[in-house]
Amino acid sequence: MMTFGDRVVSLVKKKQSAVCVGLDPRSAWIPPSLMKESMLRNEASPIAAQADAIREFCCRVIDLVEPFAVAVKPQFAFFEALHVPGIAALMEVCRYARMRGLLIIADAKRGDIDTTATAYAQAYLSGTAMDPPVADSITINAYMGYDGVAPFLVEGAPTGGGVFVLVKTSNPSSADFQDLLDQEGVPIYERMAQKVNSWNKTHGSSGYGSVGAVVGATWPQHLAALRIAMPHSIILVPGYGAQGGGAESVRGAFDSRGQGALITASRSVVFPWAKQPSVPVHWEQSIVHEAQLMRDDLRNLVGEYR
Amino acid sequence: MMTFGDRVVSLVKKKQSAVCVGLDPRSAWIPPSLMKESMLRNEASPIAAQADAIREFCCRVIDLVEPFAVAVKPQFAFFEALHVPGIAALMEVCRYARMRGLLIIADAKRGDIDTTATAYAQAYLSGTAMDPPVADSITINAYMGYDGVAPFLVEGAPTGGGVFVLVKTSNPSSADFQDLLDQEGVPIYERMAQKVNSWNKTHGSSGYGSVGAVVGATWPQHLAALRIAMPHSIILVPGYGAQGGGAESVRGAFDSRGQGALITASRSVVFPWAKQPSVPVHWEQSIVHEAQLMRDDLRNLVGEYR
Repeated sequence: MMTFGDRVVSLVKKKQSAVCVGLDPRSAWIPPSLMKESMLRNEASPIAAQADAIREFCCRVIDLVEPFAVAVKPQFAFFEALHVPGIAALMEVCRYARMRGLLIIADAKRGDIDTTATAYAQAYLSGTAMDPPVADSITINAYMGYDGVAPFLVEGAPTGGGVFVLVKTSNPSSADFQDLLDQEGVPIYERMAQKVNSWNKTHGSSGYGSVGAVVGATWPQHLAALRIAMPHSIILVPGYGAQGGGAESVRGAFDSRGQGALITASRSVVFPWAKQPSVPVHWEQSIVHEAQLMRDDLRNLVGEYR
Repeated sequence: MMTFGDRVVSLVKKKQSAVCVGLDPRSAWIPPSLMKESMLRNEASPIAAQADAIREFCCRVIDLVEPFAVAVKPQFAFFEALHVPGIAALMEVCRYARMRGLLIIADAKRGDIDTTATAYAQAYLSGTAMDPPVADSITINAYMGYDGVAPFLVEGAPTGGGVFVLVKTSNPSSADFQDLLDQEGVPIYERMAQKVNSWNKTHGSSGYGSVGAVVGATWPQHLAALRIAMPHSIILVPGYGAQGGGAESVRGAFDSRGQGALITASRSVVFPWAKQPSVPVHWEQSIVHEAQLMRDDLRNLVGEYR
């Protein structure tokens, strides 16, 4: 049976890209033309108009980045903020990404146990006779230990679904707990990494199982060390471009075949105009430009994904 | 300005109850009569029928337990598993609980940072000119540190909203990380407790701020120690009844005024028939009986909530 890691490796090789595009649709940065059209379609409900606009925007982004990316990572918070219409938009965006052949990483950071974790896993990783799963993988928080991981692996197994466990994040206060040293002087995030790797009971034909790790790009030396500590875990690296590190800063996440990593850019690819006074008229072109640039920069770094 | 802790203390005193009822609506245990009616109302969509049945059931439970409880804690996973109709049901259940004067604790265990955490906080703790917030408090995971906590406090402040941070959970694998000892021999969960308490910058008139803690009831000695370690944090204790410990097992969570704790029962109050072969005809009576019993057992333990 294919692991989620096998699916990632196979698609990365086929498309010669390790790009994952984060869909964090902040209403404030949506092109005003889209927002206006959506408001005309949904005059009765401002929240439905916003949800419709982010649905439309995300689907257009998917079309634009599909040639350059292997995965999209919808950030659930921005959809949940719009309640029922937001969730309806999220479901459509995920369906659309699947139709376009992209892997879907649900950036939901869920973290619960037992039957509750099973319910989350069923919500996002289980297909039915009628429908494929919402997503191919989901980000989770394992502060509660393996009880919060196992149900996702059970539900994901039939369709090759997986999880990405938070190991080391790049925010300043990640040090509050992740950097605490245990009695052997090993930081907690490294203990987390060891567990994450060991939770891959099967490694697939690619050597990568279904339990991946989230590791921020802020500390290049961590990436390289964690790549070695987790030989069976795909590493999902968020924040490409945002911290201005560029391709060099994520080199450590890749193995010697150029595999084992998915690099995520959100704002820098999806909203390249975020720091400008207004959205450019040809905003689609700027997204295509950024996605292609990122794909090429990473490929130049790696040489070939084998 | 009132903290979330002030609101808890005031309502506990008024109702002389520290009971929180967990709404974990597993479809399998919903009374078949409700399910049948819902299927007739929603013939075209099995998922809408399920969502409608859990909405109906949760609202009836709210009516039944309202005299004995101060809060309800909807478990988001069971609603999310039903996708859009499930979220619609969740919103209605929360609105209904608010109408009945109960505090709402969103058991969502969200855990993200910065603008993403703000989006979650806006989704569940921010009201608008038109609508009150979905919930009064939300469970969160602070593995990412204070960056994942602060946005909830900002968004919650105007309406006295709060958070409950996972400190020590009662599942077996909680030991994987929570029990690791740091270099001073202090377990990580105790470090988490210290931070949680310190994140209460304001303590309100009750002495309790808006940052509470989730501590499982499995280890009574932990509860007492953590009550002392977190003098400004309301402790939310899940799992009452399920592990068969009874009132005595949660004594440590209360302060000398009988305050500082909310005790949650889910299955034992809401599905007292879960271990029986079928749902009793007078299922409403069994819920009322269990809720009253729990309220009384806790009150007998505490004497008076002052």
